[in-house]
Amino acid sequence: MPVYKYDVTMTCSGCSGAVTRVLSKLDGVKSFDVSLETQKVTVDSDKLSEQEILEKIQKTGKAAKVSA
Amino acid sequence: MPVYKYDVTMTCSGCSGAVTRVLSKLDGVKSFDVSLETQKVTVDSDKLSEQEILEKIQKTGKAAKVSA
Repeated sequence: MPVYKYDVTMTCSGCSGAVTRVLSKLDGVKSFDVSLETQKVTVDSDKLSEQEILEKIQKTGKAAKVSA
Repeated sequence: MPVYKYDVTMTCSGCSGAVTRVLSKLDGVKSFDVSLETQKVTVDSDKLSEQEILEKIQKTGKAAKVSA
């Protein structure tokens, strides 16, 4: 079960809440964590690719990239 | 040329920046304004419907509705 990690620029709880809302509506996501403090998003999915999830996160308008 | 108006919950400049980024990438938008202060977004488009633009704004994860 892959767990993908992303760096996402989020500056307030409205920002992290928006990313949370998008991921909670996304089919194929088993679980996820959004951390405003560390600016990290982790997503556990065996149905979606790392890139597919990145694109969904980017649709929020936040700067996002796969964590190094 | 229709100008559509939306109420969008935005709590910081990261929030309004995210909405701005999404609208600037959206084909068919002639001009738009995003106001963090008034929580309003106005969009000038002759190619997209009020509902199509609303759905794009909602993809940011922000609570959004057509202004009454």
